[in-house]
Amino acid sequence: MESILAQNVYDDPDFFAGYSRLPRQVHGLDGAPEWPAIRDMLPPLAGKRIVDLGCGFGWASRWMREQGAAAVLGLDLSDNMVRRAKADTRDAAIEYRIADLETLELPEAAFDLAYSALTLHYLRDFGRLVRVVHKALVPGGGFVFTIEHPIFMAAAHPHWIADEDGRKTWPVNGYSIEGERRTDWFARGVLKYHRTIGTTLNSLIGAGFQIRRVEEFSPTPGQIARAPELAEEVERPMLLLVSACR
Amino acid sequence: MESILAQNVYDDPDFFAGYSRLPRQVHGLDGAPEWPAIRDMLPPLAGKRIVDLGCGFGWASRWMREQGAAAVLGLDLSDNMVRRAKADTRDAAIEYRIADLETLELPEAAFDLAYSALTLHYLRDFGRLVRVVHKALVPGGGFVFTIEHPIFMAAAHPHWIADEDGRKTWPVNGYSIEGERRTDWFARGVLKYHRTIGTTLNSLIGAGFQIRRVEEFSPTPGQIARAPELAEEVERPMLLLVSACR
Repeated sequence: MESILAQNVYDDPDFFAGYSRLPRQVHGLDGAPEWPAIRDMLPPLAGKRIVDLGCGFGWASRWMREQGAAAVLGLDLSDNMVRRAKADTRDAAIEYRIADLETLELPEAAFDLAYSALTLHYLRDFGRLVRVVHKALVPGGGFVFTIEHPIFMAAAHPHWIADEDGRKTWPVNGYSIEGERRTDWFARGVLKYHRTIGTTLNSLIGAGFQIRRVEEFSPTPGQIARAPELAEEVERPMLLLVSACR
Repeated sequence: MESILAQNVYDDPDFFAGYSRLPRQVHGLDGAPEWPAIRDMLPPLAGKRIVDLGCGFGWASRWMREQGAAAVLGLDLSDNMVRRAKADTRDAAIEYRIADLETLELPEAAFDLAYSALTLHYLRDFGRLVRVVHKALVPGGGFVFTIEHPIFMAAAHPHWIADEDGRKTWPVNGYSIEGERRTDWFARGVLKYHRTIGTTLNSLIGAGFQIRRVEEFSPTPGQIARAPELAEEVERPMLLLVSACR
């Protein structure tokens, strides 16, 4: 049962309290340095039917409606997240539902875009979800998602070290050994699943997606000037951003 | 002039002497542990017109003819390599030529497959070469290549370290800072060009290629049983294998 508990970590009170104070939760999309890069990967949203996989507090769902999306379905495993998303939203074209992406079923060809931010690295079975999303999209539909980068996730002890010049350096080991990784992040032993970039991209291609763009988020010089703590992100990518289309 | 000298490192006598003793040069394709993975990514070769970019001693060019390729054009910057390739080949359907891939021109729609093994990380301008290859392929033609993996290349000091448990660990820094990397490998200051996976894949997509498969080479359990020194390769990928099609 441990893995189910870990996946419901967003409903752990201590975790949720810490998580809710993250800049990206307090300030929304503009609190996430990768947001401009994600936005650039999104297709025009006007009139689109969108599913937001791991919608959290609903920041992206609401923004997509502001861009003219016809309807947004926001799904999240966490009761806490969905309750707060509903409380923060006044829009009959946005629906939030509790859903487990490991067992998700979606209607066929019902969406023009599937979007997911920092959620799919919690999934044990990425391939299944990719096939469900492919069937749920219309031909030409888009799938844009971000996950933790496998360089960031792979190592047994994923934290900064120094190289012989004292430079901030990230350790990589176990890269080809896919599967469970446990880290302490607002709670002990949060469970994530490491997959190589190859596996992530080949799962998409195998399901029938075409890869449109792959970004390994790195802050711009302007972002670093405004927020110097971002400088370390050029040393190793924390986030992988993928755009694919059916 | 330094960079031009570095790129011609294969014609440096000391480098060439060391390089020529590598298992993959002595034993050919079967001396390269990634060869079975590359072979699995290749399309059927019978009747195909192939260009081998960085053909070295011609091992792959000759193998492709054995698989029924109609003709192979092997290109290499190194006079040493091309001379040896010619000396080792008795086949009128294989032509070897000295060529600089930075300034290469190829006839349009003249090839069914472009192949390149461990060469393109020496190129300063990967995007130009990709566009040249795209034009040189027939529609539906394939581009299969291997390069050093950016995880392997990125760091200022790319060598094994130990984590706090003593586990073999690879350092990553400067990942998002693309461009020159100099390492000592049979010669001092061999010049290579680091590019992120994103840049490599987006260059292909931008030129009109479709990504078919991305592999980050890791040895199989059988390979490790036969050659235990390969075990460390599961800790971090050294090689990136890409299959794309026009």
